[in-house]
Amino acid sequence: MNKIITIGREFGSGGRELGRRLAEELGYEYYDKEIITEIARHTDMSEEYVQEIIDHRPHALFPITTGHSISYADSFQLRQMQSIYQTQCEILKELANKSNCVIVGRCADYILREYNPFKIFVYATLDSKVKRCLARSKEDEKLTEKKLKKQIKKIDKERAKYYDFYAGQTWGAKENYDLCINTTDTEIKLIVSVISKMFK
Amino acid sequence: MNKIITIGREFGSGGRELGRRLAEELGYEYYDKEIITEIARHTDMSEEYVQEIIDHRPHALFPITTGHSISYADSFQLRQMQSIYQTQCEILKELANKSNCVIVGRCADYILREYNPFKIFVYATLDSKVKRCLARSKEDEKLTEKKLKKQIKKIDKERAKYYDFYAGQTWGAKENYDLCINTTDTEIKLIVSVISKMFK
Repeated sequence: MNKIITIGREFGSGGRELGRRLAEELGYEYYDKEIITEIARHTDMSEEYVQEIIDHRPHALFPITTGHSISYADSFQLRQMQSIYQTQCEILKELANKSNCVIVGRCADYILREYNPFKIFVYATLDSKVKRCLARSKEDEKLTEKKLKKQIKKIDKERAKYYDFYAGQTWGAKENYDLCINTTDTEIKLIVSVISKMFK
Repeated sequence: MNKIITIGREFGSGGRELGRRLAEELGYEYYDKEIITEIARHTDMSEEYVQEIIDHRPHALFPITTGHSISYADSFQLRQMQSIYQTQCEILKELANKSNCVIVGRCADYILREYNPFKIFVYATLDSKVKRCLARSKEDEKLTEKKLKKQIKKIDKERAKYYDFYAGQTWGAKENYDLCINTTDTEIKLIVSVISKMFK
């Protein structure tokens, strides 16, 4: 069976960098945004639309009802969301069957549970996440710290909602992972140079 | 400043073994039961009594009152408990000033927070903890699985209560640690061989 490493991560914690570097170090495939591209290809939706549905739609499964009727739009979105999730499951399994790989996000730890992945969760303090976001954003895109904090909290809340909904377990709860890494004040490169030894 | 590694651990998760091996591997001092011995020496109480107070007395700070009076025994226990905690703080700081070390339990991560320790929390599934306890217990001491589960839960509850009370934060909540390691189905020896590289 291929070796699968999944990475759940708080926004701004450096989880993607950790995943990318880990894959490079180990010579594994690395999947992150590529999964969205694949879903878009399979479903004939645009990548932006797939991303939008994934980011903001778990609550569409609890549609607002008017009297006893559910609006057509809600039920349409519901079907789209289910179809996207279904496709995502198929794609993840295809990728896991193909080769050793590192997969960031996408509920991969849960969807691929039968593949016995090594499950990492990456987190940091809010201040550290703000610092990382500021460091990597372009000069003309820089948000204020206050706005960044709000955005980070919002994105993490959406990720938690998405994960909790599909996996039926709590996003970031250490019981669901093999290793939880706090990246506050640490260099991702150094962490990777150590933990990559686990897989060699 | 000396390098300090603190280890919080669920009962039966292999945290002590991890701490001991890590100290060996790094050539650091290792402190666990030694701290109880030192407290006993400083306070003229027996080791068993100190252990008993530590294990079971955080709730003594909320004594059962009869009418408006607090019984003498409660207030005596309360003072003993405070004195033990105070001594524990002093001893931990002495040890931290002396040399690089690994300290297991004793709220050391919190008490030594100004020493910027590397904080590890070790956990595992209940089944895995039962398996570890059974493997290390002597043939004539073996408890039934049911009894062991009950005992593990009880001890972890006491540890959580103790930590939450003194540290004012949640025992085992990943935010309070740098690294959380799930030891389910893994060999402590292998984990140590990897994470020890962080400190070299």
